Amino acid sequence: MPDTEVIALERGPYVSYGACGMPYNIEDPQRDIDDLVVIGAAEFRNARGIDVRTGHEVRAINPVGRELAVHDHVAGRDYTQRFDRLVIATGAQAMRPPIPGLDLPGVFLLRELTDGAAIKRFIDEKAPRRAAIIGAGYIGMEMADVLVRRGLTVHVLERANQVIPGFEPVISDIVAEELRRHGVYVDPGVTVKGIDAAGQGLSVRTDKGAVTADLVIVSIGVRPNVTLARAAGVQLGATGAIAVDAMQRTNINGIFAAGDCAEAFHQVLGLPVYLPLGTTANKQGKIAGANAAGAEERFSGIVGTAGFRVFDLEVARTGVGAAEISGHSLDVISSVSRHSSRGHHYPGSVQITTVVFIERASGRLLGAQMAGADTVAKRIDVFATALHARMSARDVESLDLCYAPPFAPVYDPVLIAATVARKASKGSGR
Amino acid sequence: MPDTEVIALERGPYVSYGACGMPYNIEDPQRDIDDLVVIGAAEFRNARGIDVRTGHEVRAINPVGRELAVHDHVAGRDYTQRFDRLVIATGAQAMRPPIPGLDLPGVFLLRELTDGAAIKRFIDEKAPRRAAIIGAGYIGMEMADVLVRRGLTVHVLERANQVIPGFEPVISDIVAEELRRHGVYVDPGVTVKGIDAAGQGLSVRTDKGAVTADLVIVSIGVRPNVTLARAAGVQLGATGAIAVDAMQRTNINGIFAAGDCAEAFHQVLGLPVYLPLGTTANKQGKIAGANAAGAEERFSGIVGTAGFRVFDLEVARTGVGAAEISGHSLDVISSVSRHSSRGHHYPGSVQITTVVFIERASGRLLGAQMAGADTVAKRIDVFATALHARMSARDVESLDLCYAPPFAPVYDPVLIAATVARKASKGSGR
Repeated sequence: MPDTEVIALERGPYVSYGACGMPYNIEDPQRDIDDLVVIGAAEFRNARGIDVRTGHEVRAINPVGRELAVHDHVAGRDYTQRFDRLVIATGAQAMRPPIPGLDLPGVFLLRELTDGAAIKRFIDEKAPRRAAIIGAGYIGMEMADVLVRRGLTVHVLERANQVIPGFEPVISDIVAEELRRHGVYVDPGVTVKGIDAAGQGLSVRTDKGAVTADLVIVSIGVRPNVTLARAAGVQLGATGAIAVDAMQRTNINGIFAAGDCAEAFHQVLGLPVYLPLGTTANKQGKIAGANAAGAEERFSGIVGTAGFRVFDLEVARTGVGAAEISGHSLDVISSVSRHSSRGHHYPGSVQITTVVFIERASGRLLGAQMAGADTVAKRIDVFATALHARMSARDVESLDLCYAPPFAPVYDPVLIAATVARKASKGSGR
Repeated sequence: MPDTEVIALERGPYVSYGACGMPYNIEDPQRDIDDLVVIGAAEFRNARGIDVRTGHEVRAINPVGRELAVHDHVAGRDYTQRFDRLVIATGAQAMRPPIPGLDLPGVFLLRELTDGAAIKRFIDEKAPRRAAIIGAGYIGMEMADVLVRRGLTVHVLERANQVIPGFEPVISDIVAEELRRHGVYVDPGVTVKGIDAAGQGLSVRTDKGAVTADLVIVSIGVRPNVTLARAAGVQLGATGAIAVDAMQRTNINGIFAAGDCAEAFHQVLGLPVYLPLGTTANKQGKIAGANAAGAEERFSGIVGTAGFRVFDLEVARTGVGAAEISGHSLDVISSVSRHSSRGHHYPGSVQITTVVFIERASGRLLGAQMAGADTVAKRIDVFATALHARMSARDVESLDLCYAPPFAPVYDPVLIAATVARKASKGSGR
């Protein structure tokens, strides 16, 4: 809608940056942290005619009067901004564990670009030698990798009994082994009690002793920024994030929400979930923006696809696994397969481990998890596509996938895994 | 069916070898050609109880008397073999162009493992310096790559006006550029008239001059081995390969066919095609074997997925393109997109080019072709899966694919290509 006036209000100094790229930027001392900005505020203003206002914090939404109370941090003034339609895209924030010491120098969260910049500056200026990472999720794994590459000794502390909680133990074990193979200390089942200053560095106190470190990264997850929305009467879902329909509409007429502050519809579970990821945020944002401008686009939802790299290992998942299924009335069979990534005797072929979840009665695919040192993430995409299409294990087994020795064995690990899953379901008495 | 007696009759010396791996075996002087054999005849006999008879050539099928006339090349004797059910898996043979000189020393086809062994021995013993490759299909491209890596100067001659005929020109151009970048001479639009002995080497005569070479590889395609089947009254399809139904049954009760001698049902075109590929052959063979032993399994068909690597480039396709659509009543729109393979500023990110074909009226995905130096083959698998599910461009655009900077940009090239395709269809007046 070219004649729509678009105003973007951003509390911080940056817009449109690739937050997921921060670990890899920190890894490379030569890269400028600003290269994570995909489209700068000036380009939005000049080339796209969008009135981007950085340093402008929305402090209240008046949904009846259609007004925003805005504080301009740069000019130090308050003003009121009228709107016809509003898109709430307040994102998420890093969760802070309820422990003392989070504000000590050398302790960092990693969420905003400013966090990434601060960590990078700390490494460049203080040359820390030992790092502790609290939380072994995706960000924790990526930062373990990056900090080892920057020359630090890394210690990962995780409260759950395994790294990457939510993944099957067989996948988690492969990740833990990859970390250890690269010299990372991995401590699952450990609860952090606090962080103390200790000499020149820090001491992370746990229920199983203390870990000394010069740098501590806290990465225990994120929660949606919903204070503003909730205060305005915007309804939250059971997950605590903003409830939206397929058109990204909230319960208040004319107010949309998108991205890490909002829920997304999970096609496999058939209900809204909170899975804040960049791909989903982008898709939702486009739809919310288009609909705010008068379109009627719909977001068909997600299937829960995500992945990360840690050292040589790719790890990815889609759909639901044991962790998501608990509490839902799904009768599930899981199966594990291991298969080579490339053709018979082809150089660089490695073993890929795949876990497949199917519904017992129907054989319908419910999810998959994979780990291996060769093209795992783009293989999980086949399972993701199959989930969107509600395929069965037998359907997946019959897929005509690309075969040539440099890419795959004649039966791709995806096909093998589907065959193993189908046979497991047969063996179970179907 | 454990009590079924299974006899496998093979004319040549090898069974169960990975023919697609031959170029890569030839590439590595240290590898034994025999390592391409996945399961040896002895293992079939001893571990699987299958009576594998190599060097036994079936010379006639008597479908009424249920007998085979067999010649045992090793013992030099003829005998009759009774059967209850028969699976014809005679494969395909390399096409021989109607030119003189194909039997000269240094001129090779590449189809059987014995061909691969002969080429490898020739390179090892004769140390040829210049190679000519007649035919720029998949095998021609792979052999160009391999021979350059073995230190030869390579000249590719192709009768069509582009390399990899059947691909869109935009993809073909990328392949030709990759060949030239690695020093390969690429001559499309050239008809070979004959091969002559010339001094110590060979001269390939064409309608546009002669090319001297020490080694000539002829790779102009394959045709199904159907002489035996046809003589027995087994019906061939319009493609010239053996016609089979979804259970791999031929027109004769109790006689099945599978693999490169048989047609396969193309799910996008909705009719049988001849696309001899290892993956399809494997799937068909399993089904034919199971059904010959009394099962009732069905092959749902193919979508035309294939790919190859040439130097740093991966090239892959699925579904139908302009070449396959001609002659069918499909109103098609094609679109081209170019997008980076990994996250914003992530090292190793390269440009991937994607062509997408959709049906004009419905927006239904019909096919895709991709080329790029980073994870193309496993991306085409997403399109392949979407074809099996009869997705539209909009469905593909909405897929929840795996995103992390080491694997993909926030919008994977697959998603971008689908968006471009959908918009192209809109622009065309839908």
